[in-house]
Amino acid sequence: MPNHLKSVSFIGSGNVAYGLGMELRGHITIDKVWSRNSEHASRLASKLDCIKAQSLDELHSSDYVIFAVSDSAIAEVGYKWNESFNGEDHDIIIAHTSGNVSSEVLNPSGQANKYGVIYPLQSFTYGRKISMKRVPFFIHGSSDTVIKELCDLAGLVSNSIHIMGDQQRKNLHLPAVIVNNLVNHLVYLAEQVVNSDDLKIEYFIPLMEETVKKIKSIGPKQAQTGPARRNDVEVIESHLNRLEEFPELKEVYKLLSNSIINLYHENNR
Amino acid sequence: MPNHLKSVSFIGSGNVAYGLGMELRGHITIDKVWSRNSEHASRLASKLDCIKAQSLDELHSSDYVIFAVSDSAIAEVGYKWNESFNGEDHDIIIAHTSGNVSSEVLNPSGQANKYGVIYPLQSFTYGRKISMKRVPFFIHGSSDTVIKELCDLAGLVSNSIHIMGDQQRKNLHLPAVIVNNLVNHLVYLAEQVVNSDDLKIEYFIPLMEETVKKIKSIGPKQAQTGPARRNDVEVIESHLNRLEEFPELKEVYKLLSNSIINLYHENNR
Repeated sequence: MPNHLKSVSFIGSGNVAYGLGMELRGHITIDKVWSRNSEHASRLASKLDCIKAQSLDELHSSDYVIFAVSDSAIAEVGYKWNESFNGEDHDIIIAHTSGNVSSEVLNPSGQANKYGVIYPLQSFTYGRKISMKRVPFFIHGSSDTVIKELCDLAGLVSNSIHIMGDQQRKNLHLPAVIVNNLVNHLVYLAEQVVNSDDLKIEYFIPLMEETVKKIKSIGPKQAQTGPARRNDVEVIESHLNRLEEFPELKEVYKLLSNSIINLYHENNR
Repeated sequence: MPNHLKSVSFIGSGNVAYGLGMELRGHITIDKVWSRNSEHASRLASKLDCIKAQSLDELHSSDYVIFAVSDSAIAEVGYKWNESFNGEDHDIIIAHTSGNVSSEVLNPSGQANKYGVIYPLQSFTYGRKISMKRVPFFIHGSSDTVIKELCDLAGLVSNSIHIMGDQQRKNLHLPAVIVNNLVNHLVYLAEQVVNSDDLKIEYFIPLMEETVKKIKSIGPKQAQTGPARRNDVEVIESHLNRLEEFPELKEVYKLLSNSIINLYHENNR
């Protein structure tokens, strides 16, 4: 286990730093945490059983430094990071964790040589430990050596490692937002309909779990069932009437149902 | 295990009869299967290791007869079933499995006395065996005795049994369609975006699983993340541009994102 001799530090103390840090613990030395928010840095350092850094300089002792900060902060922190060396050469691999941001922002001076991306396609929530074995990681780097070292790092927690360029990685973000954020909100809207009748969203959990299992095993096109799949206009009409008081959901219901009908009943096009 | 002495027959040989039958096997005697489609009846009878009935009369030997047929066929089969007795008294409990149809359609002559509903809130697929322990069953019946006996029957396969009237049960159907059928289609549409870049929908499965887990543990309102949650107009705009070639999905993306922004950023209303 050569990586046990290596160490990793985190810039940032939010959901991603928490999720990655908790999984990397025990596989590699967690060195330090630095964050603009000193209180959050303390909280995460205590969770990860490591040191809170007072400045970026203190992270110079690490082999890897992971920039787990918001997309808009990456470039700024990258700039500060490079400044902290005063033009000195160094051998630390830095990587951000964003699907959307180019790796090049970590090289503002054009002189850095060991930078890259380690992007886990997952939604992290602080305090919520998740198993990462099957979470796909997308790796990009400034050289083959950096790519290999970042693959090794990600490989400590996941079995699903993929090397992927900046543009293609960016293309992952939109479908990820759809299957996570939009699906989640659609369930929230369904819950509003449920609540108005004093039913419980819990009733629907086994159904949702089965939906994902079916998508996994036979794909969403084969898995489709329901009134729109059968082109059952009567049921659809009754649902639309019921949704009178939920205009946003009514519109989404109509659009998706029409899209289903168009897909499975070609003569309806 | 008193129910081992009882027996159940199925009218219908589709997804629901398959799903329920496969689970009930081993807990109660499966007597016979009858279906308008004789070939399908043979196929299911062979799966359930029971007899294919040539006519409804042959099911008179059962304690329970489950009408696992499409919503539109329930009334017609209910009428035929009652006819098959020529006005004779009988003690068989009949129940349909639909969320949407009133229990009264099983009593066309007004003289039946043992009828009800055994509605599993789940999506069944022929050939796909699923664990039913946590699937909620909604029970309705023409008398307390019938309700009790249908609860006993459902209790053989599930730990989540709920007594619920016709109208409230019908109210379950719309949210079920949303969290199953509409979510499934939304994932299909996301897959179209993915495919156009030679990425794989499999990458998104752990994310979807985590989405459902988070909904289960903290609810969809708390679980929300993503660009619309942060009111990140720039990312949303870039996604909308990317969706130019998928007009239906673009519209759904816009509606749901606006709905998220309105929910979490009240001053945007």
